Amino acid sequence: MAANSFGILYRLTTFGESHGPAIGGVIDGCPAGVTLDFEAIQKDLDRRKPGQSAIVTQRKEPDEVEFLSGIFEGKTTGTPIGFCIRNTNQKSQDYSHIKQQYRPSHADYVYDEKYGFRDYRGGGRSSARETASRVVAGAIAKQFLNPITIQAYVSAVGSLQLEKSPDQLDLSLAEQNIVRCPDPQLAVQMEEYIKQVRKEGDTVGGVVSCVIKNVPKGLGAPVFDKLHAVLGHAMLSINAVKGFEYGSGFEGIKMKGSEHNDLYHEDGTTLTNRSGGVQGGISNGMDIYFNVAFKPVATIMQKQEALTHEGELVEMQGKGRHDPCVVPRAVPIVEAMAALVLADFTLLKRADKL
Amino acid sequence: MAANSFGILYRLTTFGESHGPAIGGVIDGCPAGVTLDFEAIQKDLDRRKPGQSAIVTQRKEPDEVEFLSGIFEGKTTGTPIGFCIRNTNQKSQDYSHIKQQYRPSHADYVYDEKYGFRDYRGGGRSSARETASRVVAGAIAKQFLNPITIQAYVSAVGSLQLEKSPDQLDLSLAEQNIVRCPDPQLAVQMEEYIKQVRKEGDTVGGVVSCVIKNVPKGLGAPVFDKLHAVLGHAMLSINAVKGFEYGSGFEGIKMKGSEHNDLYHEDGTTLTNRSGGVQGGISNGMDIYFNVAFKPVATIMQKQEALTHEGELVEMQGKGRHDPCVVPRAVPIVEAMAALVLADFTLLKRADKL
Amino acid sequence: MAANSFGILYRLTTFGESHGPAIGGVIDGCPAGVTLDFEAIQKDLDRRKPGQSAIVTQRKEPDEVEFLSGIFEGKTTGTPIGFCIRNTNQKSQDYSHIKQQYRPSHADYVYDEKYGFRDYRGGGRSSARETASRVVAGAIAKQFLNPITIQAYVSAVGSLQLEKSPDQLDLSLAEQNIVRCPDPQLAVQMEEYIKQVRKEGDTVGGVVSCVIKNVPKGLGAPVFDKLHAVLGHAMLSINAVKGFEYGSGFEGIKMKGSEHNDLYHEDGTTLTNRSGGVQGGISNGMDIYFNVAFKPVATIMQKQEALTHEGELVEMQGKGRHDPCVVPRAVPIVEAMAALVLADFTLLKRADKL
Amino acid sequence: MAANSFGILYRLTTFGESHGPAIGGVIDGCPAGVTLDFEAIQKDLDRRKPGQSAIVTQRKEPDEVEFLSGIFEGKTTGTPIGFCIRNTNQKSQDYSHIKQQYRPSHADYVYDEKYGFRDYRGGGRSSARETASRVVAGAIAKQFLNPITIQAYVSAVGSLQLEKSPDQLDLSLAEQNIVRCPDPQLAVQMEEYIKQVRKEGDTVGGVVSCVIKNVPKGLGAPVFDKLHAVLGHAMLSINAVKGFEYGSGFEGIKMKGSEHNDLYHEDGTTLTNRSGGVQGGISNGMDIYFNVAFKPVATIMQKQEALTHEGELVEMQGKGRHDPCVVPRAVPIVEAMAALVLADFTLLKRADKL
Repeated sequence: MAANSFGILYRLTTFGESHGPAIGGVIDGCPAGVTLDFEAIQKDLDRRKPGQSAIVTQRKEPDEVEFLSGIFEGKTTGTPIGFCIRNTNQKSQDYSHIKQQYRPSHADYVYDEKYGFRDYRGGGRSSARETASRVVAGAIAKQFLNPITIQAYVSAVGSLQLEKSPDQLDLSLAEQNIVRCPDPQLAVQMEEYIKQVRKEGDTVGGVVSCVIKNVPKGLGAPVFDKLHAVLGHAMLSINAVKGFEYGSGFEGIKMKGSEHNDLYHEDGTTLTNRSGGVQGGISNGMDIYFNVAFKPVATIMQKQEALTHEGELVEMQGKGRHDPCVVPRAVPIVEAMAALVLADFTLLKRADKL
Repeated sequence: MAANSFGILYRLTTFGESHGPAIGGVIDGCPAGVTLDFEAIQKDLDRRKPGQSAIVTQRKEPDEVEFLSGIFEGKTTGTPIGFCIRNTNQKSQDYSHIKQQYRPSHADYVYDEKYGFRDYRGGGRSSARETASRVVAGAIAKQFLNPITIQAYVSAVGSLQLEKSPDQLDLSLAEQNIVRCPDPQLAVQMEEYIKQVRKEGDTVGGVVSCVIKNVPKGLGAPVFDKLHAVLGHAMLSINAVKGFEYGSGFEGIKMKGSEHNDLYHEDGTTLTNRSGGVQGGISNGMDIYFNVAFKPVATIMQKQEALTHEGELVEMQGKGRHDPCVVPRAVPIVEAMAALVLADFTLLKRADKL
Repeated sequence: MAANSFGILYRLTTFGESHGPAIGGVIDGCPAGVTLDFEAIQKDLDRRKPGQSAIVTQRKEPDEVEFLSGIFEGKTTGTPIGFCIRNTNQKSQDYSHIKQQYRPSHADYVYDEKYGFRDYRGGGRSSARETASRVVAGAIAKQFLNPITIQAYVSAVGSLQLEKSPDQLDLSLAEQNIVRCPDPQLAVQMEEYIKQVRKEGDTVGGVVSCVIKNVPKGLGAPVFDKLHAVLGHAMLSINAVKGFEYGSGFEGIKMKGSEHNDLYHEDGTTLTNRSGGVQGGISNGMDIYFNVAFKPVATIMQKQEALTHEGELVEMQGKGRHDPCVVPRAVPIVEAMAALVLADFTLLKRADKL
Repeated sequence: MAANSFGILYRLTTFGESHGPAIGGVIDGCPAGVTLDFEAIQKDLDRRKPGQSAIVTQRKEPDEVEFLSGIFEGKTTGTPIGFCIRNTNQKSQDYSHIKQQYRPSHADYVYDEKYGFRDYRGGGRSSARETASRVVAGAIAKQFLNPITIQAYVSAVGSLQLEKSPDQLDLSLAEQNIVRCPDPQLAVQMEEYIKQVRKEGDTVGGVVSCVIKNVPKGLGAPVFDKLHAVLGHAMLSINAVKGFEYGSGFEGIKMKGSEHNDLYHEDGTTLTNRSGGVQGGISNGMDIYFNVAFKPVATIMQKQEALTHEGELVEMQGKGRHDPCVVPRAVPIVEAMAALVLADFTLLKRADKL
């Protein structure tokens, strides 16, 4: 089924498996006249790439993007931006041992069921490597969203949880440590914990939070394409995500309406922001904030039972170079998906009124 | 913007405000040859309708659906099913007092910003009355999803939370009390609590959980249209929803991979089901389960400050007949949106292989 | 399959068969703030309706549209405009004689093949009655397309062909005769010819031409959604249409490039307009003009052989009240479809540049 | 605007300008399990490529496609097929003389209006080079359409017109001459004529006809997505196309219903085929045939007046290597677009019935 596009007017289509010649995509609908900052695009790719620090997978992938179209003299032309990122580090032999095996909690088993067979090399299309294409498209979107800013950060690793709300944090600190947690003390603990988990050959989950500032009023639509519903779709489409909440989220259910309602200032801003910047599916100009839950990576370096194609249970052990915890690398992906959503709604908004 | 459709091959388009002549919709893509059970459709509408019990809004709306097309001799013809539900109970005067006022945590303010003006009668398009159209389309979807079954129930009201997992519950008990909680004792407490909150003129949030059984393997797609991502989109598009999680959800982040992975039985089923029936975005045949968080309704019967069009803060008090807690009536809506998603993926799946 | 919508940002979804309770549609994406002229909408419906003159079908259908949503105090609200037109004149018994018969050159046969069975009453979904919904949506589109004007007219009936090009005609004369041909002498001949054909129990084809003036530059897109490609799709989707050409059309193939090219004036207008107002798929500000070929209606009042469900050939004779020539009534339908296309591209254009 | 995709379930997205690094595309929705014949794909590309014969442009472009994803061990995997074709022959200096000029009947002028500026190298996105990507996607579609066969051929060059209908022709002769006309005598005349036109520095138009055989019954939809409407959209989206007709086409308007109707044989086939294999928008199993009109190429080697950005008229003369007549190279493009349409409807058909 055709399901590799995201967005209506600013639309990304991606292609590529981790172990084919390349991954890449087409950005269709980027407005003409955006002067591109190519360093900023690469910088976001570097924030996502493997091997960037001691707590992520040690695979080496340079992740250099080649733009194939849609850009002329440094500016977008309004025509589709094709791009690809070569896979320079694929080692298909790394995966030959799982050719006949369905790894627990991976997509292996369902692929065979869905398509009749599968590309068993490194997870094929389900590899999180696909998200590099999203980072490219999101980095371009960010460049015409000005003055909107999008910042994600790690707010939980296992049970280590940041208790402060976004407005109590100095978000500029997030990128100053390899965990990408804006609380420096907690970041140290998280780093230690991730290292310990890796030593055990295990993995752990976490939460990425995101804050979007300077959002114009009126983004989103009243019914199916509520701003937060499309943001939720975007986030839940990232590998390993198990949940999404915005504003008061799951905690908000315990409150009463009289406590939860955001009363107005005279200028239309609100005293509190339990709405998370979205009311009735439409942005109200307050900061948008949301949380994204990531499960622990399924590939562990411990012995586990796998299922064979023939229905036998066999002992297997993860090999290769995997992340003990994905949230540090997921931060730019969350930002990219948020940027895609906001770019699309920004363009859609132009059609709202006569 | 055109954003009132949901789905690709089984697609619902809805229209209508609470205070216009009618709400309704068009179901496009329902396969030909489905023998419709009209009583089952009305039954789901009745589960959603106001006035059904002592703990929901006491508005009287019969919510009778009139089918206008797409059905011949009791069967679907493959052509679009148009339908409408007349608004028999609108009292525009009920809302005249808020014509110039933006109610806290309602969509009033953002509508004026987005569209330049608004239909101030009862929330206009943002009224949850729109969800009756979803229930119609979902009830029809359920009728060709056999043997898939979808059951939602209330698992939390405020801090009263059902601690049991779906497989520890007798879900058939859910519809035997007006709260729609399958734990009879807890249901009584929830009912008492909702009544108390209503007496205070206040409202409270809650959680609706949903279990989908007998799901074929292979529904969903690997990247943007992961089964759980589209389910998340669907649920987050329901009025008052603040969060979505599936499988291990937000709790799963605390686990290690070695604890979280679902090991296989020889038949491809799994010992545990932290994946919630979805791996890599694709159904694996195990039960799908997820939770949907609803905030407390914004309309309360206490005095609050509202903002006027002219930027003044004025005291207002909610009038009319509103729900103290939406989750009992949200149960069939959650089911309907789940049915739309599964119907669409069921049809899309037919195009997966040669 | 879901294929009853047209357009991206200004999107019409229609429903309804000729012999069900109603036909209708949903217009999604109409910008907020359009003050509607309801008389103009009804006027276009009256131009399409049966029984309007001596040369069209004598069925009586008042074709009164009821708007169900999306309009408040006479203006569009930006939310979907649901509407329906009741079928007041269906006589299912008229069609009982063809229940088991596939009429030649009708959709009867393919419906049974596609859907497994069919609604045999009056062509079901294939009835041209469906186009009334398009006229409603087109009439609304016209109201925000100002200063664009769209006028269609009859340029051929059988071999009676208008030889003049659009700029040699006074198009205001078209609506002054029942054929809708702007050449009064030819209109008389056409009228006589249609009457004669009807007496024979036969039907005849024709051409509807259309001129669109005051088109802003820049509508349309360079590749798949060329302005003329989407116009062609729109026109070919009208019942009985067999061909579409724009600008120099099929005649242009005989020309040389040196003859065909439209040279510029200094202000960007062109001396000739063989491009038909569209270059490279994008409007250049000159008049858009195109022709639409309609075949003779398949239902004739003469004896013909039909095929039964069981594979027998049986003699049948058309009954009921059918058009001897569809082009006079097709004029407002062509205009409506053109208006839908231009409305959509007008909104899409807003997203072209930064 | 996002308008570089075509199709719903079998969907092609293209990117690329003639003078950027590469053109290419993404085929999303190709079913899993198609064993690809790569030679057949290259063969179709060779039929489209420049320099293939004495009557087409003498540019040298090898047009070798590199597949980047979606294929594993020679078979499609069900995931998107990304591909690119490098531009090896771009000479931007060839176009420097037109940087400030709008060529007559080119898209130059409208691009500046639409996007605010343009990529002036070789027509940018409007170059027919883009169609190579369509040929790739169409060649893959052909490989799973079996037993459907699609053959296009040249039926007119200027006033030299093939008078025979498709069933009177031996279509296997079409590829045996460089014009691609199945009538060998006429092909010689056409070839001579094209050479003469080229000597004059001029160009000429023509017609490509197409026949599709072995079509299953039931492809297409009753209203907006009639099979012939989507075919028309597809054909009109090809560069230089001015018209589309199917079955009896523009000639059919002169017939009476009693002459035009296709009477049935007892097996459901028809004695005549004026319907062109499509009734009510849905295939009836008979051959589909249609004609596509191509205007003379706008770039001529004679002096003409161009308009400058500053509004001056200046003399210009076409340079470079252009086609004197596009129809011989358009034949595989018409086939490819037809294949895309049939592939999509073939997959969509699977969702028609319960």
